[in-house]
Amino acid sequence: MEKVSFQTVRETNLRSVLRTVRELAPCSRAAVAAATGLNKTTVSSLVVDLMGRGLVRETGETSQRRVGRPGVLLALDDRSVAAIGVEVNVDYLSVVAVDLLDRELVERHVPLDARAAGARECARRIVAALEETMKLPEVRDRTVVGVSVAVPGLIDVPSGVVTRAPNLGWRNVPLGDLVRECLAGMPVLVDNDANLGAMAEYRFGPCSGTSDLVYLTGEVGIGAGVLTGGELLRGAGGWAGEIGHLELEPNGPECSCGRRGCLEALAGVEAILREALPDRVPDHPLSGGDVAALVGTAVERAQAGDPTTVAALERAGTWLGRGVAALVNVVNPGALVLGGYFVPLTPWLLPRCREAALARSFAPEAGGCRMEPSDLGLSAAARGGAAVMIHALDTGALPLPKATAPA
Amino acid sequence: MEKVSFQTVRETNLRSVLRTVRELAPCSRAAVAAATGLNKTTVSSLVVDLMGRGLVRETGETSQRRVGRPGVLLALDDRSVAAIGVEVNVDYLSVVAVDLLDRELVERHVPLDARAAGARECARRIVAALEETMKLPEVRDRTVVGVSVAVPGLIDVPSGVVTRAPNLGWRNVPLGDLVRECLAGMPVLVDNDANLGAMAEYRFGPCSGTSDLVYLTGEVGIGAGVLTGGELLRGAGGWAGEIGHLELEPNGPECSCGRRGCLEALAGVEAILREALPDRVPDHPLSGGDVAALVGTAVERAQAGDPTTVAALERAGTWLGRGVAALVNVVNPGALVLGGYFVPLTPWLLPRCREAALARSFAPEAGGCRMEPSDLGLSAAARGGAAVMIHALDTGALPLPKATAPA
Repeated sequence: MEKVSFQTVRETNLRSVLRTVRELAPCSRAAVAAATGLNKTTVSSLVVDLMGRGLVRETGETSQRRVGRPGVLLALDDRSVAAIGVEVNVDYLSVVAVDLLDRELVERHVPLDARAAGARECARRIVAALEETMKLPEVRDRTVVGVSVAVPGLIDVPSGVVTRAPNLGWRNVPLGDLVRECLAGMPVLVDNDANLGAMAEYRFGPCSGTSDLVYLTGEVGIGAGVLTGGELLRGAGGWAGEIGHLELEPNGPECSCGRRGCLEALAGVEAILREALPDRVPDHPLSGGDVAALVGTAVERAQAGDPTTVAALERAGTWLGRGVAALVNVVNPGALVLGGYFVPLTPWLLPRCREAALARSFAPEAGGCRMEPSDLGLSAAARGGAAVMIHALDTGALPLPKATAPA
Repeated sequence: MEKVSFQTVRETNLRSVLRTVRELAPCSRAAVAAATGLNKTTVSSLVVDLMGRGLVRETGETSQRRVGRPGVLLALDDRSVAAIGVEVNVDYLSVVAVDLLDRELVERHVPLDARAAGARECARRIVAALEETMKLPEVRDRTVVGVSVAVPGLIDVPSGVVTRAPNLGWRNVPLGDLVRECLAGMPVLVDNDANLGAMAEYRFGPCSGTSDLVYLTGEVGIGAGVLTGGELLRGAGGWAGEIGHLELEPNGPECSCGRRGCLEALAGVEAILREALPDRVPDHPLSGGDVAALVGTAVERAQAGDPTTVAALERAGTWLGRGVAALVNVVNPGALVLGGYFVPLTPWLLPRCREAALARSFAPEAGGCRMEPSDLGLSAAARGGAAVMIHALDTGALPLPKATAPA
C-alpha cells in the first residue's frame, strides 16, 4: 500500500516534470523546480529517470545565469519514443507515426476496400500496417508507447468496441481487443474518426488553437467531431456529432441509415460522385477501391469546366452549408474544418457551403465561424489519434515507457 | 499583499467548509475537518465566522460518537440569506426567491407587455419587482446575496449587456448596469433564459441530475439551453442553442429574424396560436398581454376536441420533433425538457414531437433521450438563475455576505 502510493506520487511528479519541459524547453532544472514547486534535488532525480526512459534529454547548451554555475538545458527527447495512429475508412487505411514532440515521422496511405474485407480482415490489415510501420527506419529504434485506431462509427471508447459503423457494415466489433491481442498488450485507443480529426485540427493546421471547433469528415459518410472549450463533445451515449444524418430533404435520396434525405445521402462523397460523374458511377454501392480515383476524375472534370460535375459539386456545397448552419445554430463553433475527400473538392464546395451557412445562421456572419479545408487530407484522424496518445503520456492516461538505459 | 493573500486563503477555506456542510449536513465539526483536510481548530474558527454571516447554524442535535464528548451537528442556515432570480419575457416577468438550501421562498408571475414597454421601462419594472420581492415577509429579514436576470436573447455575460433579443426588439441594452445601479451595487447576473432554464432542470424536476440535458424554452421564441457534462455549452461567441432559427421549411412562414421557415416561426407559441385559434389571433404581432390568455383558450379548445386547434398543435409537435432530432443528432442529450407555454400544450405537442424526433435520429431510440415537460412552468429561468446565485457562494463567484451578528 505504502509502496503503491509512493510510486504514484513519483509517477505524478515525473509527468509534471515532463509537461513542464514540454512547455518551457529549452529550460534548466532550476526553472523546472520553480515551475513545478518541487525541490531541485527531486527534480534532478526525476530528470535522470525521464532521461533513462527516453523522454527528456540535455540539449548540450547552458543557461545564462547571473549567479552560480550555468545550468545545462533540458528538452524533450525526440529520438526515443513514438506513437502511431491508424484510420480505417470505407476505402483506405491511413497510418501516421509521431515523435514525443508531436512531429510526424511517417505518413502512409493504403487503399483498402473495407466494406468487402469485413471487420476481422480489416483488423488483420490494421495490425499488419502497424507492424510494417514499426519496422520502418524512422520508427524501428523507438519505443512505441501506444496506438490509436480511428473508425467512422459509434465507438464505446472504454471497451474499444465499434458499436455501429453503417458505412463499413459493422456492428459490435471488439476492434480494440482484436488489435491489442496481436500487439503484445500495447495500449490501444479506438475512437471515432471525426473526433480524432477534430483533435488533429485543434493541434495543427489553419484553425489550430480554436477551442470551439467542428471537424467534418468528408468520406462516404459525414461525421462531425465537435470540440467545445477544447474538449470533445460526446453526448449522453457517445452519439454526438452525427450531423450526417440530419434530415434536410424528406423526399431526398435513400441513406445508408435507412432514412431519406440525410445530409450524407445528399453531400457525402458517394452521393457527390453519383451526381458529378453519372457515366462513371454504378447503381450499386461503390467499391471502396474506386472512391479515390473517382474523386480525382471529378476534380479533373470540374477543372475543365464540365457543367454536370460543377453543378453537382455546387449543389452538394449548398447542402453542406445547410448542415453547417445547423451546427452553427446549435454549437456556435469558432471554426469549421472540411476534411477527407472534401479537401480536393473545396474550390467548388466551399463557396456555396459558406453562402448557404451564412444565409441560415441566426448569429451574424455565422457567429464568426471560419470555414476552411483541412491541410491534413486523409491523414487527419490518424494524425489526431497519434497526438492523443503522445499527450496521454503527459496526462497519465498512458503508462510511461520503461527505462531503456540504466537510470 | 500579505494581508490580501491571507484573506484569500481564509475565504477559500470558508467556502470549502460551506460546501462540505452543504454536502454532509447534518455533520459535526470533526467530520468537516476530516472532509476538508483542515485542522479542527481552524474549522471551529471558520464555523464561527460562517455562523456570523448567517450561512451555517448548529442544529441542536449531537452526533453519536464512540469516544470523546458528542459533537454538535451543523447544517446550512436556511433563515438568513436569499437569492432572487427574475425572468423578463415577451409577455411576463417571473420572480423566484430561494434560501441557502435552494428552496423556494417566493414565486411571482407578473403580466408585462415587454415589447410595448421597451428596454428601459422593462429594466425599471424588473427593479420594482425585485424591490417588492425584497419587502415580502419571506424575504425582508434576509440578506439578498445576488440577483439574476434571464432574457430571451444573446447576452454578453461578463458585461451584462443584452446584445440582441429579437422577440423583445432589443439591441445592445446594458441591462446589468441598469439594474445594478438601482440596487446599490448588488451583484447582478444577466444570462440567457434557456441557459438558466437548463440549470433549473439540471437541479430540479423530472430530469434533474442528467448532465447532458437540453431545455427548450416555449415562448414566442424557442431557445435551447444545452448542458454537456453538467456545463453550459455557450459556443465561441455565446450563440450556441439558437435552435429556434434552424431552417426547417425554406418556403415556410416569415420569422422575427427575417428568414423563412425557422423552427420558431413554425412551432413558437405565437405561430402555434395563429394556427390553433385563427379566429382569435390578429394579423399583426400579438400584444404581449394576450399570450397567456390565448394559450388558455387553445388548451380549452383542444380539450373539447376542436379539430382546427388539435391539428395545429399536432403539426407544431411534429415541427418541434424535427428540431429536437437535430439536437439529438448533434449533441445527443440524455434528456430534453419542454418549458414555458409548451408545458400546458404538452398533451398535444409531445406525442408528435417524440414520434418525429425518433424517426429522424440516427441513434436508436433517439440516443436514449427522455422527452418531458418541465414542472417549473414559466418560472424555470428565474428559478435556475436564483439557484446559480446561491451556488456562486460555494464556488467563489459571489462575495460571501458580511457578518450580521458579531462572530
